[in-house]
Amino acid sequence: MKTVSTAKSHGGVQGVYTHASEVCACDMTFAVFVPPQAAERPCPVVWYLSGLTCTHQNVMDKGEYRRMAAELGLIVVCPDTSPRGDDIPDEKDNWQFGKGAGFYLDATQAPYARNYRMYSYVTEDLPALIAGNFPADMSRQAIFGHSMGGHGALTIALKSPGRYKSCSAFAPIVQPMTAGWSKPALEKFLGRDALAWRSYDATALIEDGHRFPEFLVDQGSADGFLEDGLRPWLLEEACAKAGIALTLRMQEGYDHSYFFISTFMDDHLKWHSERLG
Amino acid sequence: MKTVSTAKSHGGVQGVYTHASEVCACDMTFAVFVPPQAAERPCPVVWYLSGLTCTHQNVMDKGEYRRMAAELGLIVVCPDTSPRGDDIPDEKDNWQFGKGAGFYLDATQAPYARNYRMYSYVTEDLPALIAGNFPADMSRQAIFGHSMGGHGALTIALKSPGRYKSCSAFAPIVQPMTAGWSKPALEKFLGRDALAWRSYDATALIEDGHRFPEFLVDQGSADGFLEDGLRPWLLEEACAKAGIALTLRMQEGYDHSYFFISTFMDDHLKWHSERLG
Repeated sequence: MKTVSTAKSHGGVQGVYTHASEVCACDMTFAVFVPPQAAERPCPVVWYLSGLTCTHQNVMDKGEYRRMAAELGLIVVCPDTSPRGDDIPDEKDNWQFGKGAGFYLDATQAPYARNYRMYSYVTEDLPALIAGNFPADMSRQAIFGHSMGGHGALTIALKSPGRYKSCSAFAPIVQPMTAGWSKPALEKFLGRDALAWRSYDATALIEDGHRFPEFLVDQGSADGFLEDGLRPWLLEEACAKAGIALTLRMQEGYDHSYFFISTFMDDHLKWHSERLG
Repeated sequence: MKTVSTAKSHGGVQGVYTHASEVCACDMTFAVFVPPQAAERPCPVVWYLSGLTCTHQNVMDKGEYRRMAAELGLIVVCPDTSPRGDDIPDEKDNWQFGKGAGFYLDATQAPYARNYRMYSYVTEDLPALIAGNFPADMSRQAIFGHSMGGHGALTIALKSPGRYKSCSAFAPIVQPMTAGWSKPALEKFLGRDALAWRSYDATALIEDGHRFPEFLVDQGSADGFLEDGLRPWLLEEACAKAGIALTLRMQEGYDHSYFFISTFMDDHLKWHSERLG
């Protein structure tokens, strides 16, 4: 692991790091905020998964999470959204696929299967690195994210309910199997058999019996992707049928941007902190 | 005035706007945050002046001012740092002069005098636009800034103590006449006679009899520009001699970045709010 930069912020340290990821077969960059409490004891870890086109940097710059994370004593880890590098297969003019759009899955199709393994990266590769290099209490982890990263957080939590104490999302893609901006990506990454897609679709996972105790979801009513891409009512239906406690808050007038995310960041960090103990 | 973008944030509206500036003889872009309280009454205005290389966007993205401004009911105006456009004279490879480096002065030397009039822009042109287009109580204004913008805030407040109820700065350039990164700019903008520079130098203005009731200054101890460029002790000496109340806080371990600024943003907004009444 190499340190790209560190800066004191809100009493803690905001760092950016790179490492050679075995899982993704490329160098990966990520951001970690370590709160001041970590000088005295290991701190719980909150994973923030970013949306389409983002790197670790968008939320680091615009997410406004450090003040509250420092107050609550939370380590916040912000991975990249895909493998990176000149030799990583990509579709340059397509922001909904490839670099910046890894959809937090393990691809099975050539030429993507070699590098696009963001599911394993976020659940195995990077956690091992965090556990070994930061003052992290890995028995207390939470996960949340935005848009594609909300999809990532929901699906990862549903598949590993024992690992995460809590899960929340800002404007998540709740049913990527049927949304225009994600269906083509699932097909390219996972092949044409839609059965394989179900493992990376929150509503399908719930239908198939996966469970998580409760979710918090904030969704802006002025979000341009609401009707076609996000459709939180599909998650609402799935959770209602499955008996999963979903707190879905429609936020009047908010869009899909970090102006929305940063507004409700405090609420989400408090939600996680209460459940992390 | 044209609206570039608006987004709901922390209950208020973060907007970006452009207008044809007569003073700068070019189109200028600026950001305004209007808090929720403005729906019911005109709100006081806090001016934030950015540092070298910045536009309105750096603090809008990374300053973390909206939560507290929304709580306190403050309009926050963030101007650009220089005139902009292809036909604006510049030194492309010099980040300490020209575009992004207007030093909040009115240039007197060709070819800069036509456009580089940021002092008049920030004190006359833009305030008139704000007064005419936003729910602003212009009888209650405060000013603050970072680095070159801290220099701007201090010098502007010292020259118009009746206009601003309060003034603060993050890591300000307090004596641009003698700092390596500003002296060449003053010479190009104002000519070789250093007497003309005194009107844009906080310590010289104080020496020359200008007064402001009190300043709040935060300065990171790990700021790479501290010893050569910023030197807050020069302001401390000038204020002590003049009987100006200076609260200078050396912040252990903080650098010159927005990680530093955002950490102490709440303190500064509260400082201004208390004095804006």
